[in-house]
Amino acid sequence: MSEYTIGVDLGGTNLRAAAIDRAGNILHKVTSATPVGGGRDAVVENIVSEIRTTQDALSDKTLKGVGIGIPGYILMEQGIVVGAPNLPEFVDYPVRDEIEKRLGTRVVLENDANAAAIGEKWFGAGRDVDDLVMLTLGTGIGGGIILGGKALHGCLGMAAELGHITVVPNGNPCGCGNNGCVEKYASATSVSAMAKMLNLGADLPAEEVYRLACAGNERAQSIFDTAGTALGTTIASLINIFNAPLYLIGGGMSAAWDQFAPAMLAEVSRRSFTYRTHPPRIERAQLGSDSGLYGTAWLGWGEASTL
Amino acid sequence: MSEYTIGVDLGGTNLRAAAIDRAGNILHKVTSATPVGGGRDAVVENIVSEIRTTQDALSDKTLKGVGIGIPGYILMEQGIVVGAPNLPEFVDYPVRDEIEKRLGTRVVLENDANAAAIGEKWFGAGRDVDDLVMLTLGTGIGGGIILGGKALHGCLGMAAELGHITVVPNGNPCGCGNNGCVEKYASATSVSAMAKMLNLGADLPAEEVYRLACAGNERAQSIFDTAGTALGTTIASLINIFNAPLYLIGGGMSAAWDQFAPAMLAEVSRRSFTYRTHPPRIERAQLGSDSGLYGTAWLGWGEASTL
Repeated sequence: MSEYTIGVDLGGTNLRAAAIDRAGNILHKVTSATPVGGGRDAVVENIVSEIRTTQDALSDKTLKGVGIGIPGYILMEQGIVVGAPNLPEFVDYPVRDEIEKRLGTRVVLENDANAAAIGEKWFGAGRDVDDLVMLTLGTGIGGGIILGGKALHGCLGMAAELGHITVVPNGNPCGCGNNGCVEKYASATSVSAMAKMLNLGADLPAEEVYRLACAGNERAQSIFDTAGTALGTTIASLINIFNAPLYLIGGGMSAAWDQFAPAMLAEVSRRSFTYRTHPPRIERAQLGSDSGLYGTAWLGWGEASTL
Repeated sequence: MSEYTIGVDLGGTNLRAAAIDRAGNILHKVTSATPVGGGRDAVVENIVSEIRTTQDALSDKTLKGVGIGIPGYILMEQGIVVGAPNLPEFVDYPVRDEIEKRLGTRVVLENDANAAAIGEKWFGAGRDVDDLVMLTLGTGIGGGIILGGKALHGCLGMAAELGHITVVPNGNPCGCGNNGCVEKYASATSVSAMAKMLNLGADLPAEEVYRLACAGNERAQSIFDTAGTALGTTIASLINIFNAPLYLIGGGMSAAWDQFAPAMLAEVSRRSFTYRTHPPRIERAQLGSDSGLYGTAWLGWGEASTL
């Protein structure tokens, strides 16, 4: 009987799950609203129910494990979330054990941005490398660092907070307490905020700013130039730190690649001598919004994933 | 018969070597001028001769291997130097095999800043951790990253170029082509250069600037405040990237710790939420100028050292 795993992406808004086989084929996919209002138990019940629905749909196949991506800090060995601004009820709660108990299947938790990087490593742009660094541009900027095929977690699961690398020492204030974090220049939220600063609109979503830039609006384009420059400064430092063969940009904002990449690559070239002499690949992630599902599904196989 | 290894520190000026036993005791130590003027063969001959002298002095013990720290990029598996601004004749020359052949003993090459970090991991401030990040403040700023007890090399041996992390986007120009690299603010050379900018003296060594600061000279102190702030910005980003339990400052400039550490720690606290909530250790390296000798000696035992 053929085997598969299930990857779950637990966002603050949506819960997504996909059954994926060993070769990376998606066998089944479900999406539902995350019932955050119903509290922790409702969310856990929803996860379990989506997994059971998927199992029923694939009753001729064997589920080998489940990976769950969570926007928070994870202690991998304990399977506990130690910090999650958008899912506060999950902090210090034994999510993994609770879901394992109900399903009778191995469950692995992972930070959502790490899961995206793992997905790209095993099924996406990083298939042929062992090391990569990924920036996920969304509401904020998440990071994932893969070394030797494994995700870098750090001693408290707080590694790869790449969105909080300083790029403008006295720049825009960030919720983290710093000034000038890259996520204040290159996240979807910051693109909207810069559009407001430039009187393009009070609540213009990043997609709209993107459309304006595509249509030739110079102020809109200047926002993506700023975002690209901030990303370039960040990636140049990451190249000098990791000397990895691949740097990936994922997340919703990566759709604006054509608008921000020229400024980004010029800045990387200006700032990193390693890039000028031995250029690594700097590319868009390939799996789009599914990278986290692929990554968590891969974790479901239970292979060593943590550095 | 008891065993030992030899660590060699091949600088542009001095060649140093130390015989060290498994427990980290220095059994014998030699220093000589690096005969750079005599060309590559003279340098290799000098290394071999210093090692043979050491072997003669320890004839009742067995030499198990030799590690050599070189200020350049090393391809570890091949044992070849691929870039070394201060030792250009060594580039693409099979240093390791050449010395192994003459000595009949295992030889391991390593970048000097990586070697210093390895030394601190096994015999110094990092003995009780698996992960650490070290900045070596000298003429420039070198870096070493230890993860799981092993040094991060990157795909071309160019990882951990921490001196070239951008801290001031439009700051002092750096020889690497970037502006505002941390080594333009916190190396011994940059301290001298800032002393000149402040009319403290045209060619004042960093040690003199340090003495002036200790004596209460406010302009001299402002230089160390600037250096500390640059280091703090760097370490805050490194904390957000690695979430390691230990960050070390080594090299000659670390002697000025009391002058630059207050500004450095204030900046780290301001910029890293991880530091504010889960502070890692930020300390001076413990082995002083011997950290590289300890690191290369450790490599001589032949254990897996590369991530």
